[in-house]
Parts: sequence; C-alpha cells; structure tokens
Amino acid sequence: MTDARRRHDPAVKGFASDNYAGAHQEILDAIALANEGHQVAYGEDAYTEAMREVFQAHLGPDAQAYPVFNGTAANVVGLRAMCAPWEAVICAESAHINTDEGGAPEVTGGLKLLPVPAPDGRLTPELIDRRAWGFGDVHRAQPKVVSLSNATELGTLYRPEQVREVSEHAHRLGLTVHLDGARIANAAAALGVPLRALTTDAGVDVLSFGGTKNGLLYGEAVVVLNPEAVRGVEYIRKTGMQLPSKMRFVSAQFEALLAGDLWLRNARRSNEMAARLAEAAAAVPGVRIARPVEANAVFAVLPPEVTERLQKRFRFYTWDESTGEVRWMCAFDTTEADVDAFAAAIAEEMDGR
Amino acid sequence: MTDARRRHDPAVKGFASDNYAGAHQEILDAIALANEGHQVAYGEDAYTEAMREVFQAHLGPDAQAYPVFNGTAANVVGLRAMCAPWEAVICAESAHINTDEGGAPEVTGGLKLLPVPAPDGRLTPELIDRRAWGFGDVHRAQPKVVSLSNATELGTLYRPEQVREVSEHAHRLGLTVHLDGARIANAAAALGVPLRALTTDAGVDVLSFGGTKNGLLYGEAVVVLNPEAVRGVEYIRKTGMQLPSKMRFVSAQFEALLAGDLWLRNARRSNEMAARLAEAAAAVPGVRIARPVEANAVFAVLPPEVTERLQKRFRFYTWDESTGEVRWMCAFDTTEADVDAFAAAIAEEMDGR
Amino acid sequence: MTDARRRHDPAVKGFASDNYAGAHQEILDAIALANEGHQVAYGEDAYTEAMREVFQAHLGPDAQAYPVFNGTAANVVGLRAMCAPWEAVICAESAHINTDEGGAPEVTGGLKLLPVPAPDGRLTPELIDRRAWGFGDVHRAQPKVVSLSNATELGTLYRPEQVREVSEHAHRLGLTVHLDGARIANAAAALGVPLRALTTDAGVDVLSFGGTKNGLLYGEAVVVLNPEAVRGVEYIRKTGMQLPSKMRFVSAQFEALLAGDLWLRNARRSNEMAARLAEAAAAVPGVRIARPVEANAVFAVLPPEVTERLQKRFRFYTWDESTGEVRWMCAFDTTEADVDAFAAAIAEEMDGR
Amino acid sequence: MTDARRRHDPAVKGFASDNYAGAHQEILDAIALANEGHQVAYGEDAYTEAMREVFQAHLGPDAQAYPVFNGTAANVVGLRAMCAPWEAVICAESAHINTDEGGAPEVTGGLKLLPVPAPDGRLTPELIDRRAWGFGDVHRAQPKVVSLSNATELGTLYRPEQVREVSEHAHRLGLTVHLDGARIANAAAALGVPLRALTTDAGVDVLSFGGTKNGLLYGEAVVVLNPEAVRGVEYIRKTGMQLPSKMRFVSAQFEALLAGDLWLRNARRSNEMAARLAEAAAAVPGVRIARPVEANAVFAVLPPEVTERLQKRFRFYTWDESTGEVRWMCAFDTTEADVDAFAAAIAEEMDGR
Repeated sequence: MTDARRRHDPAVKGFASDNYAGAHQEILDAIALANEGHQVAYGEDAYTEAMREVFQAHLGPDAQAYPVFNGTAANVVGLRAMCAPWEAVICAESAHINTDEGGAPEVTGGLKLLPVPAPDGRLTPELIDRRAWGFGDVHRAQPKVVSLSNATELGTLYRPEQVREVSEHAHRLGLTVHLDGARIANAAAALGVPLRALTTDAGVDVLSFGGTKNGLLYGEAVVVLNPEAVRGVEYIRKTGMQLPSKMRFVSAQFEALLAGDLWLRNARRSNEMAARLAEAAAAVPGVRIARPVEANAVFAVLPPEVTERLQKRFRFYTWDESTGEVRWMCAFDTTEADVDAFAAAIAEEMDGR
Repeated sequence: MTDARRRHDPAVKGFASDNYAGAHQEILDAIALANEGHQVAYGEDAYTEAMREVFQAHLGPDAQAYPVFNGTAANVVGLRAMCAPWEAVICAESAHINTDEGGAPEVTGGLKLLPVPAPDGRLTPELIDRRAWGFGDVHRAQPKVVSLSNATELGTLYRPEQVREVSEHAHRLGLTVHLDGARIANAAAALGVPLRALTTDAGVDVLSFGGTKNGLLYGEAVVVLNPEAVRGVEYIRKTGMQLPSKMRFVSAQFEALLAGDLWLRNARRSNEMAARLAEAAAAVPGVRIARPVEANAVFAVLPPEVTERLQKRFRFYTWDESTGEVRWMCAFDTTEADVDAFAAAIAEEMDGR
Repeated sequence: MTDARRRHDPAVKGFASDNYAGAHQEILDAIALANEGHQVAYGEDAYTEAMREVFQAHLGPDAQAYPVFNGTAANVVGLRAMCAPWEAVICAESAHINTDEGGAPEVTGGLKLLPVPAPDGRLTPELIDRRAWGFGDVHRAQPKVVSLSNATELGTLYRPEQVREVSEHAHRLGLTVHLDGARIANAAAALGVPLRALTTDAGVDVLSFGGTKNGLLYGEAVVVLNPEAVRGVEYIRKTGMQLPSKMRFVSAQFEALLAGDLWLRNARRSNEMAARLAEAAAAVPGVRIARPVEANAVFAVLPPEVTERLQKRFRFYTWDESTGEVRWMCAFDTTEADVDAFAAAIAEEMDGR
Repeated sequence: MTDARRRHDPAVKGFASDNYAGAHQEILDAIALANEGHQVAYGEDAYTEAMREVFQAHLGPDAQAYPVFNGTAANVVGLRAMCAPWEAVICAESAHINTDEGGAPEVTGGLKLLPVPAPDGRLTPELIDRRAWGFGDVHRAQPKVVSLSNATELGTLYRPEQVREVSEHAHRLGLTVHLDGARIANAAAALGVPLRALTTDAGVDVLSFGGTKNGLLYGEAVVVLNPEAVRGVEYIRKTGMQLPSKMRFVSAQFEALLAGDLWLRNARRSNEMAARLAEAAAAVPGVRIARPVEANAVFAVLPPEVTERLQKRFRFYTWDESTGEVRWMCAFDTTEADVDAFAAAIAEEMDGR
C-alpha cells in the first residue's frame, strides 16, 4: 500500500462533483487489455480506429471523434475549430465555458464569448436573438456559434425538440451549433433517447462528448458531426496541447464506454441517485429543492448554519451564498446507501439547528 | 476481447518512439489501487500530496510539482510561467519546442523562440550569447529563459557540470533556466547520477519532468525548483487546459514511478537496449552509427532503399532524408529479443541490397 | 485639388460620431511646426518629452503618458499592462471594450471581460460586487481591474465622488481601476472640474486619454497614474503594434491640446452643441429625449420612418432598433448653424410623418 | 513656439533611420486639404475611395489597399490574414518581422516564424526548401507563407526576376508570398521599374506598402494583390487595433504620395544620397563599405573608437559590435550638404584616430 493510499479512506464519498469519483472497473479493464505491446502514437492505432467506429455507430457515419484530455480542452478545441479568430460564441451566462474554465476560451483561445442571462440555463431562439446581431460590422465580434450545455450547469435538460428549435434558428442566422456534452449521457439517459436524438438528429454541428464525469479515468472527445462547420481540428488539437501520445488508452476507454451500454448504466445510476436524494431531502422539513432535478444534480436551499455543519461531514459546494442554495452531484458510483446516509445526515443537521 | 484488441498484435514492436510503448504494469497497479472511493478533484487529494513529497525527496524541499497531461503542455505551461508576455526563450534549433510541437509555444503560448543552431543538440555559453542581447530594447523580444533538453533530441546528454555551466552563465545574464526533461530519467540513468544532480543542483529553475516516455499511461509534471522564477503556474495550467479533474490518477502514477526505483529501472532498460542495438547495427557492414549513443536513441545512416524495406517490417522514422539518417528509439519495454530481431532484420536488408 | 477632395463636400456635416470631424487647425499647426529636421524615432524626441510634461501638469508628477494610435489600442495596451494573462476586467455591459472593439480585448489581448448590466452605463460598488468574487479559485478568471468609461457610452457622466467611490471600493478588493477616457475632456468640461479631479485625485490607476474625438488628427495616450498598477507598458505597446516611429507628431498634438486650453474649448463646444440640440429636439412634438444629456451625446426616440427619412439627409446611427432610439453626437467643430439646420430637419420630418 | 520646438534644432540631422525624418510638405498639404468638414469614419470616405484607386493604378485592378498605422502592423495584419492559426511563415533570419518587432508576430499574432539564414538578406528557392517541409504533419507548424523584404534589411534588393523566381517556387509548394515593402519605393526607384514589376507582376500575393519611411506623417497599407490568399483582413485589422477612425487622413497621404511621382522623388533622393555617402566614405582611408549599396542604406566598417566619436556628432547605429559594422540610412529629406558634412566628419574622425 502506498503512502497516498494509506491517507485515502475509500469509504468516504461526497456529493461535490461527479469528478470526485474514480473510474469504472470496466474502464480500467479496457486499459489493461490495450496495454500489451506497441501501438503507433498520436492516433494511428487500432483502438482509435475502433473508437471512431463506436462513435459513428451512435452518432452517424459523418461523426468524427477526436480524443482530448479534459472538458475545458474539448470545448476550446471545438469552438476554436468552429470560429475564425474574429468570430464569437453565444452562450448562457451560466455556461461552463463562461464561468468555470478560468477564462481559457478567451485567454488561450482568443475567443469572445457573448453570454446571455438564461434563468434555467437553457438558451432559446429569443435569447439567441439578443446577441445575434451586428453581422458584417467590424466593430462587433462576429457571432458565429451558439453553444449549449446539455445537461445544463443548472441540472436542467434540453429535450430533442428544444435542441432542434435552437439549431434551426441558429442555422437560419448562419450560425453553427456547439454542444457542451460533459453530461450528455445523463441527458440521454434521463430522457430515454439515444445519444443521436440530442445531437446529430437535432442539428448539433460539434459536440464535446464527456467521458470523465461518466466513469472514465480521463479523456473527452471533440466530435464533429458536421464537417463543414470546422477547420483544422487536428492542428488546433495539437497546438492546443491536447494530442495524447499514447492515444490508444483514451480511445480504449471510449470503446469500452460506448460499445455496450456502460455509458447508459453509469448515467442512469447517477441520475437515479440524484432523484433518490432529491426525494429524501425534500421530505426533510425546512429543506427546499430549488430547481427541477432532471439529471444528476440536486440544487437545494438550506439554512447556512446547517450547510456549514453538513459540509464537515460530506463534501459539497455552496452554489449561491446570497440565497443559501447548495449543489449536490451524484456520480456513477454513488450507491443507495451513500444517498441514504447523506439524507439521514441532512435530516439530523436540520433537526439539530 | 474488444474489436480494437483483435486488430492489435502485441507481438509487434517498433523503434519509432518511446511513446509507442504502453504503460508499465506497476503504473497500472497504482492506478487501480487509487481507484476506490472518492477523492477531491483538481489536486486536493491524498495522491497529489504524496506525489509532491516524492518529487521533493528527489529534487529538494523547494520543488513544487504540478501534474499536466502531456509533454508539450509541460513545456508551454512552464515557459509561460517563466516569461512575461514580451519575453523570449533561447533554445537549440533542434529543440522539441521549436520543431515538434506544431508551433504550440508561439500559437498557444504567444512565446517568441530564439533558436540557435547547436550541432549536437547542446547549448553552451557561447551559443547562448549569440541570442542573449538587446536587453531593454523594445524592438527585440526580451531574452528571458534558456531552455535545454536532456537527453537532447539528438540522443546526446548534458553532464551535470555542463548544465551548471549553462545555468551559471544564464543566471549571470539575468536569464532563468528551463529543462525539457521528457527523457531526464534516461539522462540520469545513463550518467549514473541522481535526478537532482542534473536539475536542482545544477541550477535549473523549472523542469518538465517526463512520465509518458518512461512508462506512465499519461502524465508529465511541471516542476518548479526555484519559486522566484515563475508567476501564476496554477492559473496558467488551468487556462492552458491542463488541470486534470481526476488528478489523483496522474499523481498516483508519479508516486509509483518515483517512490521506488521504477523510474531508474525503466530508463536503464531503454538505454541498455539502445546500446545493444547500436552495437549490433554497427557490426553490420554498410551501417554507420551517426551520433554518440548516450541515452535511448540510436541515429544511424542506411541506404535509403534499405530503410524503405526495413520500415515495412519495423516502424521507425527517417530523421534526415538528405543524408539517409534514421532514428531508432528504445522503450522501457524493449527486450533483448526485440533488439536482436531488429538487428537481424537490419543485417538481412543490408545484405539483400 | 485632388480627386478625393473633389468628391468631398465640406459643407456636409453629420451627427453620427465625434470622429467624423477632422482635426482642429491648431493641431495641424503644431504638426507643421514639429516637422522640420530630424528627431529620434520611437519617443526619444523633444516633443515627447514636452508631451510628458504637459500630461504631468494636468495629472500629477507620477503620470506617465505613452502615445498610441487609437482608442481601442489605448484600452487594450493599458488593460494588458494591468493584468497578468489569467486576470479579468469588470466593466459595464455597454462599455466600448465590450461592444465596439470587435473583440480586440479578447482576440488580441487574451483578456476575459466580466461585463455587468449597468442601466445608465455607470458602475457602482454594488454592480462591481456582482462580478468581483472567486479570488484564488483557478476555475474563475481572476477579477483584477474595474474599467469605467467617462463620459459613458450612454452619454452619462461619473462625478468625481462617484469615481472615487468606485475606486475606493475596487482598491479595497485588491482591484485596480482603469478609465476609458475617450471623452474624458467632455466629462471634465461638463462638470467644470480639472482633468485630475476625475482621474488622479479620484483614485484612477490607468487612463486611456482620448485625443482623436477631441480634435486630434490621430493619437491617444495610455496614461499610467499609479506605476504599481502596471507591468511592461512599453513592451506591450511595441508588441501591440502601437509604437509610432515618428512619435514626435503624436506628442506634438497632445502638447498643443493640453499646454493651453484647446482641450477644454473643444470639449465645451461639443457639449454645448449637444445641449442645444437636445433642447431644440425636445421642443419638437413627438420627439423624446431618452437619456440625460450630460456630455456631447443626445439619445432620442423617434418614429422609425422619421429616422429613416432623416438619415437620408444627415448621417447618424440607430442605437436600438427595438425602441426606435437614435444617437446624435456633436463634435468640436459642430456649429450652432449645424445644430439649427439639423433641428429644423427633425421638425420637418416629424411634421411630414 | 512651443516648449518642444524650442528644444528641437532642425539643423541637426542624423543617419540612424529613415524614420527620423519628418513628413514631406506635400503630405502635410494633402492632410490640410482633406481637413475641412466631416467625412464618414473608419474608411467609408472620399479619400479612402481615391486611395484605393491610386493603388489600383499602380498595382492592378485586383489590388485592395487597407490602411493601417505602422509597419509592424502592416506585416502582422497581412500575415495573420494569410495564415490559419496553425500556419507558419518562412523568412530570412534578418527579416524585420524576426528581429525588430519585439516579437509582435508571435506575441500578438500567434504566428510561428521559420527563419532561415540568408547571408545577403535575400531568400532563394533553395533557402525556402530548407524550411518548407512537413506538410500535413500536425507536429510541425505548417509552412504557409514566404515573406520577403525588398529592399532587404541589409540594403540589398530583389530584382523582378528574383521575386518571380521565389514566388513561382513558393506557389508550386502551395505557399503564398508576402512582401514587406517598408522600402518598396526605394527598391523600385533604384531598379528603375514600376511598383508592379516587383509585386503584382512578380507573383506577390500580399504587400506591406511602406509610407512612413518615404515621407508620410504616419501610415502604411496592407495591399492584397491576390484575394484568394487572405481571409478576414478587415476583421483582423480591427481586432489588431489598426482601424484608423479618421481614416481619410491616412488615405489622403497615400493619394498624395502615389497620384503623382512623390513616391519616386522621395525614394530616389534617399537612394542617391546613400550612393553619395558610400562613395565619399569609401574614399576615406580605413573605411570599408561592407555590403552592396543598392537602396538607401550604407553598411560600413569603422574602428570602434571612431564610431564612438562620430556617434557623438551624428546619430547612427552600430549593426554588429563584433565586426565594427555600422549602418547609415538616408532619408527623403537628406541633402547633399548633409551627406557632405557627415562624410567630412567621418574623414576627420578617421584622421584623428
């Protein structure tokens, strides 16, 4: 046992983020299986070939998947490939690219974002119109891409027809559509639709396909659904420092995730655990569930002193200090026992207030 | 067995690059061990804490290690943290940052490189002086960093006193010293010195510590040896899209590599296999070893038609088409049988010419 | 007479922007006077020395003025010097840097803006607090600068005590204060205060001092009031492609503008003409003045068909198509006759509706 | 008389740079003539229209000229428009973009330069081939543009057939051709050919047309000769902070320079003065003219102590401290008396050694 392992109590779980979890065992098995012998580096390997095929099986024959290391990179590489240097991205104010990537789109990508307030995290044609103007005017960063997140940062979902409505509107305006799918599996699982219903079939041009939050060790993919919408993806990935040398291992993980139903099992479980948690928490007097629980996030309002005590027992984030809203995330490895223990703790701390 | 695994013949090995190899089994074991339960994302985990300690055990108590995903990123993040936006980096013309990163330092980092021809890949005080001038002149990108590679791209090594000579010269000029250590383990193993003899003790300020080429699944580290030489590493890593969410797994790999002697065993083997290959190849009439074989690279000159036939049997790169020079790399998993089979093939193809 | 001059009817004036005007005759005279003989290029000339002194006479002995070519550059160079690459700028949503510079701060500067809706164009401590959070969190672009515009894009002004209130709040938070002073002369003239009352004495750290809109041929200045707030201005100006080789001519213009009261005469006139226009327009039935007229801009609401007809006779911009709001700007060379002719045209077109 | 004017002795001239001169009187007259009344800002004015026509008269009907402020900007805006973000520029090691722009192409443009040593400053097909390789390899910044300077930084010239040879070679390789024409007028004047012989007719795709060094107050132009070679020039100019608001004044200067023969008179004079100076200096025992004097630059080798004394009397730069080589530039306003006085001083100081 290593030094680190001795300091790590695996019985302790939290509800702070779906990336506090480790990797699913089937993912580790796939890595081990891919590990023998040599494979050509940088993508010319058998696993990357197979990975491309499984993505096409899900997303259609035009889908081209490009592995990268993390979610910020998937978004920035994808958006950079969709935009000339003077073009801009319309997104919800709450979008991860706007709030949680340390400014990477602007600092590293040189991308102007045009954020628009979207109360439930979802863009609509009307909200897009508030930013989609000034075409041909050099004084205005040229709107070019509409970037959605599904599930949104607020735990809400776009249904297929909502994505399609946005895509059709965007395309009519000459814009293309990017989807931050860090939790696209959760969205598809929750809605009971195939992945392509929310992407290819709904008019999405480029997708950031999330792996890490759904049980991978590491790895995301930029998936180009419409080749006309991008330019230079492979060069942008390389200059963006996102070309894995031992790419076979990212690819093998995606093959394991997508060839069968692991992606769906993992997403379903985290969704179900969130529903279970929301139900249990809502039953505690004084706790209010703040937003619709549609995927694997639960937003609740608690008294601040309860939050403080509870955070000493379970890790999670305060979402909005001014309202007392907190966020609880469930992961693919969250168990019913984990949820029940946490719900019991919520009840205890509320009671002891 | 997956689709990909069926297409992958693990008996086939090549000599194209040390990143065609997979991961060492002890690395996979360390990942598996770290995989239970939850750990805080983004670096506040037990494995990252332990990883920092093992780096300090090797490189001294001031060493601060920051995991990133790949080698290009380690270099760009480190250099970016060492330079204000108007400062420039002196390097050998053959340096990886100048030739093999797709322009990432310039495109993504906005860094001006000041490359200087260095026949054997090694910088010297005299070569540095050819670029280190114009201080205070706004018309000249301000020289700020000297970047070395050890082992160099040409398979040569800097000995500790050579690094020190360069560092002292650089520091006298007000410059800081960066070391691209993608193969620093190979250098230390070949020279029979501890890692710190080539880094901390030789005046290096910031080190890109290579993991992937020495048996890791993925992962490199920016190691700051002199905290005065950098600014904002953590922000630059994040905006550089290099902050792993499940950082525990990069850290666990480094702990496994560095807590014992795995780093040394792996490096020694690839070095020894290169020596064995060079010896065998040199014995083949008509083959000329083109450069000193000091680490795990062998440069040889072959007739082009022999190269062509040989490349159909074993993957490797032509280094210089005009001279017929080729490069053969050995990896931590290259065996004596692999080398002997390859040497036999060289002899056969030379014979059949 | 040149070809171009023949196509140019100098009797035609417009109300679209204060940069549709030419240069004041005293500015041309100063250029002519500076034109004899040789002067050292890039700023080491007698005119630049004198320019620095006149800026210090206005703004205090610590003021360091750096000429650049245009207003976008003054803002980007100044902000870039105030921010490390991972730091961000809080500004009003209506700020010129956010809406009218084609994305230059992000595209060229790699700067993340944190825009906040400000109904009358003015930031307040409360509005700043909506964006000034997340310090030390790598996931959030680090708020570092508060950027004000005075006069604002909406024609409103900050009074000295309002600037000071914002500065003190910003400084308490560890932020620095940038002032986009493209129309700072208009603000000072309107308020009857010296330039330093709105800048140095009110806690501003860095100022974009506007020249072009107040009668210069070309040229703006980055004026550093607090040397601690910046790093590398001269290098950032050079790499930002804003170092004029024949700098003496930008400097001579600023000397002419600021050594006497030309800055004040020009600003007063454009302000007075705006007041005259607002008064005349307000008297036309059906015309509504939409915002306080505090400097040289008039915002009015007209029926769209009237606007359309009027724009065929006088050039000006529609500000908000959804409300029918238009913007009329007066320049240093707008005359009473120009205003009266325009006001008469407004009345005619309203009447003919 | 202003404070600055009092400190400025117009009798003093130097030989440091052709941008130590002021503006030609006809240029100032053109500005004054353009100064009446209003003109639409940002390029939609009568002078810019006329400027476009005079450029087309010289360079052909496809030429599109875009005014910018200075030479660094003309180069960076032009190159940026010629390159996708991952594409690179082959240039001579001595090129201004590589040595004298503070790193602006890399820092601001994110452009990778691929400099190649060119002993006399001129590229040839053979030199281009040393950098033009690796097409399609993501690990190599993709060569896309060959950038020439004419006259070169070393005072040498490309003849029309030399430009054509380079262009044809570049085009065969799929590269486009950029010409840094900061001194293109000097080249054309010296060779006695029209401007288009060295540009449009010789296969140049994009030209930085120099104005400032040939008698303008300020202003250069990006001239696109092949519209297929660029993308987004106007947006890149705007986001590059190079869109002059009062563009009529840059345009009026170019109209004045190019409508008649002012460009040629100015260039001829500076060339002739350089020839006169070279002749006089060569006649001084101990002075060696170091390079062919083909345009308005003279490179000479003097004893360092002579250089030092001479620099106290006349401003000029040491080009290479190791060899004692100095550079003397003549300007459009350099007179025979200026040259003779300087030559006399050289003789005196050599004599007094």
